[in-house]
Amino acid sequence: MRPSGRAPDQMRPITIEPRFTRHAEGSVLIGFGDTKVLVTASVEERVPPFLRGKGQGWVTAEYGMLPRATHTRGSREAAKGKQSGRTQEIQRLIGRSLRAVTDLTVLGERQITLDCDVIQADGGTRTASISGAWVALRLAVDGLLASGKLTADPITQKIAAVSCGIYKGDPVLDLDYDEDSNADADANFVLLENGHIAEAQATAEHATYDEEALLRLLRLARIGCNDIFAAQGRAVA
Amino acid sequence: MRPSGRAPDQMRPITIEPRFTRHAEGSVLIGFGDTKVLVTASVEERVPPFLRGKGQGWVTAEYGMLPRATHTRGSREAAKGKQSGRTQEIQRLIGRSLRAVTDLTVLGERQITLDCDVIQADGGTRTASISGAWVALRLAVDGLLASGKLTADPITQKIAAVSCGIYKGDPVLDLDYDEDSNADADANFVLLENGHIAEAQATAEHATYDEEALLRLLRLARIGCNDIFAAQGRAVA
Amino acid sequence: MRPSGRAPDQMRPITIEPRFTRHAEGSVLIGFGDTKVLVTASVEERVPPFLRGKGQGWVTAEYGMLPRATHTRGSREAAKGKQSGRTQEIQRLIGRSLRAVTDLTVLGERQITLDCDVIQADGGTRTASISGAWVALRLAVDGLLASGKLTADPITQKIAAVSCGIYKGDPVLDLDYDEDSNADADANFVLLENGHIAEAQATAEHATYDEEALLRLLRLARIGCNDIFAAQGRAVA
Amino acid sequence: MRPSGRAPDQMRPITIEPRFTRHAEGSVLIGFGDTKVLVTASVEERVPPFLRGKGQGWVTAEYGMLPRATHTRGSREAAKGKQSGRTQEIQRLIGRSLRAVTDLTVLGERQITLDCDVIQADGGTRTASISGAWVALRLAVDGLLASGKLTADPITQKIAAVSCGIYKGDPVLDLDYDEDSNADADANFVLLENGHIAEAQATAEHATYDEEALLRLLRLARIGCNDIFAAQGRAVA
Amino acid sequence: MRPSGRAPDQMRPITIEPRFTRHAEGSVLIGFGDTKVLVTASVEERVPPFLRGKGQGWVTAEYGMLPRATHTRGSREAAKGKQSGRTQEIQRLIGRSLRAVTDLTVLGERQITLDCDVIQADGGTRTASISGAWVALRLAVDGLLASGKLTADPITQKIAAVSCGIYKGDPVLDLDYDEDSNADADANFVLLENGHIAEAQATAEHATYDEEALLRLLRLARIGCNDIFAAQGRAVA
Amino acid sequence: MRPSGRAPDQMRPITIEPRFTRHAEGSVLIGFGDTKVLVTASVEERVPPFLRGKGQGWVTAEYGMLPRATHTRGSREAAKGKQSGRTQEIQRLIGRSLRAVTDLTVLGERQITLDCDVIQADGGTRTASISGAWVALRLAVDGLLASGKLTADPITQKIAAVSCGIYKGDPVLDLDYDEDSNADADANFVLLENGHIAEAQATAEHATYDEEALLRLLRLARIGCNDIFAAQGRAVA
Repeated sequence: MRPSGRAPDQMRPITIEPRFTRHAEGSVLIGFGDTKVLVTASVEERVPPFLRGKGQGWVTAEYGMLPRATHTRGSREAAKGKQSGRTQEIQRLIGRSLRAVTDLTVLGERQITLDCDVIQADGGTRTASISGAWVALRLAVDGLLASGKLTADPITQKIAAVSCGIYKGDPVLDLDYDEDSNADADANFVLLENGHIAEAQATAEHATYDEEALLRLLRLARIGCNDIFAAQGRAVA
Repeated sequence: MRPSGRAPDQMRPITIEPRFTRHAEGSVLIGFGDTKVLVTASVEERVPPFLRGKGQGWVTAEYGMLPRATHTRGSREAAKGKQSGRTQEIQRLIGRSLRAVTDLTVLGERQITLDCDVIQADGGTRTASISGAWVALRLAVDGLLASGKLTADPITQKIAAVSCGIYKGDPVLDLDYDEDSNADADANFVLLENGHIAEAQATAEHATYDEEALLRLLRLARIGCNDIFAAQGRAVA
Repeated sequence: MRPSGRAPDQMRPITIEPRFTRHAEGSVLIGFGDTKVLVTASVEERVPPFLRGKGQGWVTAEYGMLPRATHTRGSREAAKGKQSGRTQEIQRLIGRSLRAVTDLTVLGERQITLDCDVIQADGGTRTASISGAWVALRLAVDGLLASGKLTADPITQKIAAVSCGIYKGDPVLDLDYDEDSNADADANFVLLENGHIAEAQATAEHATYDEEALLRLLRLARIGCNDIFAAQGRAVA
Repeated sequence: MRPSGRAPDQMRPITIEPRFTRHAEGSVLIGFGDTKVLVTASVEERVPPFLRGKGQGWVTAEYGMLPRATHTRGSREAAKGKQSGRTQEIQRLIGRSLRAVTDLTVLGERQITLDCDVIQADGGTRTASISGAWVALRLAVDGLLASGKLTADPITQKIAAVSCGIYKGDPVLDLDYDEDSNADADANFVLLENGHIAEAQATAEHATYDEEALLRLLRLARIGCNDIFAAQGRAVA
Repeated sequence: MRPSGRAPDQMRPITIEPRFTRHAEGSVLIGFGDTKVLVTASVEERVPPFLRGKGQGWVTAEYGMLPRATHTRGSREAAKGKQSGRTQEIQRLIGRSLRAVTDLTVLGERQITLDCDVIQADGGTRTASISGAWVALRLAVDGLLASGKLTADPITQKIAAVSCGIYKGDPVLDLDYDEDSNADADANFVLLENGHIAEAQATAEHATYDEEALLRLLRLARIGCNDIFAAQGRAVA
Repeated sequence: MRPSGRAPDQMRPITIEPRFTRHAEGSVLIGFGDTKVLVTASVEERVPPFLRGKGQGWVTAEYGMLPRATHTRGSREAAKGKQSGRTQEIQRLIGRSLRAVTDLTVLGERQITLDCDVIQADGGTRTASISGAWVALRLAVDGLLASGKLTADPITQKIAAVSCGIYKGDPVLDLDYDEDSNADADANFVLLENGHIAEAQATAEHATYDEEALLRLLRLARIGCNDIFAAQGRAVA
């Protein structure tokens, strides 16, 4: 029995509010239950130094958590003067995932930065970030297409992410904080709408797992991502 | 004529959504027009080292701006590894202002941290932060009173803040970004509901000003703060 | 009764030793009583990146306090690896103040940096810094005029600053450390010789204040600044 | 055809020199072909603050790369003043992996730090680090057992890691640098001797992959880890 | 011929103004010609963590250079966020030197920090710092003796330092900036009044040197230090 | 009697393994007894900014100590976010020493960086670094000569370094850790094969020393360096 009463393969309610803020070229407030992440997509007509003159663009991400997004207040990374290893690991994952569905040559010599800021945390902030980032990116690219700055669409397909894990011996989908902090193993999958995998990460926390468990977690992730793909589609319709 | 068509002594719409997030002891999303700041109040049952054993509490603030709160993306302070002078100046101002209406001895040996994070910026982020912080503080203290952790109310009265400035030669209230970036002088006043002043700051940007102008700016600030006091009252009713 | 026995509107002795060091284009040791600040003006024939090619110059300031300028030793900011919020707030104020009396277009594409280093502190270090910085700037600009690098004078008039505050219920001028650490409110005013205001900052420390008090503090500041203008005039004669 | 001429399921030669340095409680120089990592295990009779008084120990890891371990010199992280996101991600992975085979309660209130320093890099430095760290940990724990500081063995079984990837369309084992920098996808698996999985990470670099590919990569990893388990066994015999 | 016209074994005028600032337990402005260093000695009734409970005190030093002490403005270390290698090397040398003439057990569990801040630089700032630091330390210890906090004198004898070097082929004493920046080799000697050596450092800059040159430099240093010992004696008389 | 049983003028065994790693243009593992330092020489076809366009090259060094090179684990400088004063002092010394035997004009507009990483420490790490760095530099320059990138040899002669000190009243050569941590004075000499001195540093640790002692330490250093010159010669033969 899950603390929330959900079925093992049941996502929390997915909410997507596109255009949540007005300055960014794309923006969205995405919610997986009580997890709320604000994602903005910022377009800049320049690329980072390592790409200058190579005829391609770049998609990157930054991630942050407001100090009181969590149950107890965490210290502000700007005040501490550095980003934690966790933060860096997450923002590298988000950027890598979105690049997996972007044709950087079609994007041209411009950079899109996806800022994912967690307003409220209840497990799954990185997967909500990736799923919301696709919406923000889609909106920003739609603007570039509408304005004629782009004539072809660099986004190749939808991408979404969801966590799952072994909780009290059973594989469950979309861990909330209560489950996440007690899971034997947790996993994050980043999946494409065509079924391909962009990223699979499954980590033993309190108990190692076997191949069968890995496959069951992947099956759950497919169920969750399908829900997310549908919500993304409605949001950008 | 103001870019927004407002009268010189007219505030932008003030919106206050109390309890915007669920983990913090107090939280609010405050809007002055398109400026939106999320303020959370976090209660901790300990005080900073310089106050240990002194029988009093502390109220402090931190301030941040999401990278794409602004028209063009700013760099993330956590990634740069330090907070700007502007950020530090603002968070010192917010903390000082809220302490001006808090009896720290009545608060007892606990600390309340007010995190002010700008979701969207259109001028006046520091004054919206102060005005919202009072609401978050009020809600947090109400919780302490309700739970019996506090038996007397440490908040002595309401406090609010508003910007004003000399725009195209005329004193105007509550500058938005268009006005703020072109003002000859701008000022921030932090006022108490009883009419007293907690902080007055008036800075020549493109032209110095005379004593008469300073007084006219203060009069405008009184008008604006009265509107804010009313909105604060409704929010915590 | 003030700890120093001074009248409420009495400045401490103002001492200005121009050309205190020999390498800087302008330098001065300014004293407000026991507060001693060394200010140097350094001219560089280049502007910061954000001004390149804009046909104007820049005046900026840095501020520091020697570790044992104070009653008890403070830690060295270079050793701590960062400047405090207070330091940054002060150096922003100094730069802004001096720019208020400099025509940056007449200055041309060069930068003048005013380094204000507190040798001994007894209250009022930021106002002594501003008042001394004008002298150092004046000397540096005189050198540019004498050498023919400048043909018109970019300094439009004198500027000076002084602190005042509410001490034991009475407004007093030019707070020393004993007064400053016990004042109900303290204020810093940056005034031009023509009577205009470049900056007014009045902060409640232990008690908020009313509009009448604000005006009385400003009157005291005018008295103090007139003394400083006279001393500045003698120093650069 | 692999650049090295190896078969798809062929590891590079595994070399393990136990007790490579003399001060550390455990040390090893491990080589996967031209990748050489020096791992030391340091025992300290104290635990980090978050574990004090909880009756358990801790195993953690740090990772570094000598500046000229690589084909072209990289900058020294100590000189840059911060560890990269990649470094932090790797050292978190190493620590987590070794904890998966350590009973921290049996270890008692002491900490073992595994320092993994890459002397020469040719792909697979994180997996060589994990595989070598087990040997260093084993040697350090053997010392604790021999000295009577431990009476039961906290290490539950062997753990090893290996990389694999999709190179030119084919799954291959133990990528060297040439393969790693051109792989469509790469994966790292951390496996226990009993066949369980501690960590699975598979990332699309130039092409996403399907479930079948994920399983084939895992099969290759099992082959490689079996070779490593054997080499570990010989090293600590 | 030296640029200054001095004889090879001639010091620049040595000036020592004891009690230059008023808050520090000891303070001095020392000049070797145009090199001017303000040294303060701060007494704290505690020792650094590594000495707690060991029944002895500590003497340490910090060194800084005001940004415009030099011919062209250098950047402020507090603003850069770190102290240069040169700064750290110098402050380690100063502390080590003063400890060589202090009986730390007699000093008792207190720390004396010597802050050496260069007001104006013209070569020899580290040697002027050491020579002045002895005066500041002497004054601070005299205060401890006078107040009865110390009953025995922990200072065992005088210590002084001077630079010398090979300039245009000839050994010369007390290099000024013109000589220092063109010397083939330069050396710093820290000598005790009894003739012993606390520190000898001789570095080839543009040409290596032989044993005979090293000895001639040491002889010059003895001449210079004798002048400094005399000046120190007069200053603390 | 020395703890190791060595004669006062006896070096520890000197071991030099050239080409210890394969990517660097020059590399060596040098041992002075149990002190082991890996030195790599990296050639880059560019010079640092301050030398651009000046028709000369640069030789510089970086130094690091693996966390468990020492008897007890030290913290990792990359994790602490800064290099210690000791590290910076040593790397400045190494770079300066190697430049003393390099004709930078003959080297041309390229930089050679000598990375000295201490694998195991038992006293004398800086002198082993310098002595090994010469070998790595020699190998790298030989490569440049062999490839035709250099047509003349910029290395003017051999250079080596050794520590010595006053241990229990007697001058001894090549201090190991036991001696170094108890020496009254210790010294480092950097000598050229022609007998000239590049650097002499002699520091009182627990007792100051006289001129005679300084000369005896230098004589010992000459004996030690002759052994090192021979070993260097064999290594690059």
